[in-house]
Amino acid sequence: MTTELVVDVKNQVQQALAEVEKRNISNVFFVACGGSSAIMYPSKYVIDREAKVLDAHLFSANEFIHRNHAKLGSGSLVILCSHSGTTPETVEAAKFARSKGALAVSLTNEEGSPLALASDVVLKYQWGEEANAFTTNYSVLYQLVFGLLKVVENNEKASIVEESLENLQNVYEKAAALYQSKAEAFGQDYKDEKIIYTMASGVNYGVAYSYAICILMEMQWVHSHAIHAGEYFHGPFEIMDKETPFIILLGLDETRPLEERALEFSKRYGKKLVVLDAKDFDFTGVAEEVQGYIAPLVLNYVLRKYADQLAEARNHPLSKRRYMWTVEY
Amino acid sequence: MTTELVVDVKNQVQQALAEVEKRNISNVFFVACGGSSAIMYPSKYVIDREAKVLDAHLFSANEFIHRNHAKLGSGSLVILCSHSGTTPETVEAAKFARSKGALAVSLTNEEGSPLALASDVVLKYQWGEEANAFTTNYSVLYQLVFGLLKVVENNEKASIVEESLENLQNVYEKAAALYQSKAEAFGQDYKDEKIIYTMASGVNYGVAYSYAICILMEMQWVHSHAIHAGEYFHGPFEIMDKETPFIILLGLDETRPLEERALEFSKRYGKKLVVLDAKDFDFTGVAEEVQGYIAPLVLNYVLRKYADQLAEARNHPLSKRRYMWTVEY
Repeated sequence: MTTELVVDVKNQVQQALAEVEKRNISNVFFVACGGSSAIMYPSKYVIDREAKVLDAHLFSANEFIHRNHAKLGSGSLVILCSHSGTTPETVEAAKFARSKGALAVSLTNEEGSPLALASDVVLKYQWGEEANAFTTNYSVLYQLVFGLLKVVENNEKASIVEESLENLQNVYEKAAALYQSKAEAFGQDYKDEKIIYTMASGVNYGVAYSYAICILMEMQWVHSHAIHAGEYFHGPFEIMDKETPFIILLGLDETRPLEERALEFSKRYGKKLVVLDAKDFDFTGVAEEVQGYIAPLVLNYVLRKYADQLAEARNHPLSKRRYMWTVEY
Repeated sequence: MTTELVVDVKNQVQQALAEVEKRNISNVFFVACGGSSAIMYPSKYVIDREAKVLDAHLFSANEFIHRNHAKLGSGSLVILCSHSGTTPETVEAAKFARSKGALAVSLTNEEGSPLALASDVVLKYQWGEEANAFTTNYSVLYQLVFGLLKVVENNEKASIVEESLENLQNVYEKAAALYQSKAEAFGQDYKDEKIIYTMASGVNYGVAYSYAICILMEMQWVHSHAIHAGEYFHGPFEIMDKETPFIILLGLDETRPLEERALEFSKRYGKKLVVLDAKDFDFTGVAEEVQGYIAPLVLNYVLRKYADQLAEARNHPLSKRRYMWTVEY
């Protein structure tokens, strides 16, 4: 990656943190829709586990506005995200947040977009095949969140997370290469399925959610649902049988035992199981103490290859839509 | 209902609140699994909107333990629920909460159960066809939550909520009677469906979640997923077509516009739509300012009739299980 882009991302994050330092921030709201919301789930997990002072809340943008959380105010940092910066609910949420006196920091790929204009600080992230992991949405968000924890309550993980993220692209590529043949087999083996569930827990749940609603439902018109691996045993597992496909994620965070238990049960009664295990990945360059937090980013990257293969095998491009970009709603 | 039971429920709640008053409670964790977790979603909505001091968190019991939220401590009230009081993860969660110095208050139908024994305070609720709404799980939980808001921060809704809950059974019965023929039609019209989605937002989302994972997946082995009405437009709506059934809930809370928008879109492109609208219900006896909070309880009650009818039409009893009560897990 170019040094210029790395420096630019770091400078942007520092600008956001400079605004945080001017205020007395006591809580964080993660606000976005769909896939942009899903990338925020790991950050809520991080704050839940790490923060002695800050509270974290996560809402879909329109729910955020209408729920009107009583704690939203001048002590709030509202972190928003929209790739195009045009998602109407998220733009409105930024305006709503600022009307309450909150600091609105937005991640987007489009600097001049309505979301960028509606926010106090804008963090532009890179996107696509050529982008280095350090400059992409998940990474920029983690830099912001760990920077926030440092600024507000002297949490010391920010620098090791930053260093780890600088080495992430290499981890991505090795993991994708390792799972390439499995991704291809997934495309072939599951191309005729009408429903595919995903399952995970803890810091990885958002990745399962994103794959269910964005890849399978939105981009492939395949029925899906992200099942929480702990909730699985309290209802959802009754639909498990040899015909029902499940993508099961295993991370490296503290909730891994939940995912392992769900996998173990599924192996006894299911047959169509697609397992991605972060233990298989080579995390060289990522500090061991934050590998649990970084694992969902790698799982998400590898899953994208599974999406590509499924789309190709089904002859249904990931960009195909019935309603989005097509009808008013 | 017998005056004795009403007095008993009120006394139990007062005992829990007396324990709250002895401590300096700053946050609440709602901790349970599956259907017992789902009944807590409305309470989180209430605290999010009403509380100036208290923070609310909601986790599946095993996630709660392993996530190990940094704010869990002596200033925490942990509210747990398990019908039988034997759910292992929830019993462990009560022990974990107390090991952190938190106050553990449990709702259960079984006073001498492991969960009851592992908790500081036990609230026994009534259950089944003969139980009056005031004495059942949702109502007892609301009495506790609004009582908490009163004790900790002088919120004034507790007494009107209590009064409204005393009149709830009548609302339930009228709503169920009003929707009886629709419930019967649902059973007949949808008995052969392989997948049925549910959708709602705000205070009603937990009811949609419960119906998806407990009624459809667990008790009927029908594929399902509770879609958030705001997230719908950011992925899930692409699977909407004339063949795909959706149960859409409309409540009376502040997020109703999200549900209305989702319904409006669904009517344009879908055909198999089952709509339950709380505006149809007669809320006489329930104070207008808390009808939004009470609506999910009524929607849930009416939906149970839809479950009964579906089970009958499918000749698949709601008590039938493949794994629960049958195999080890």
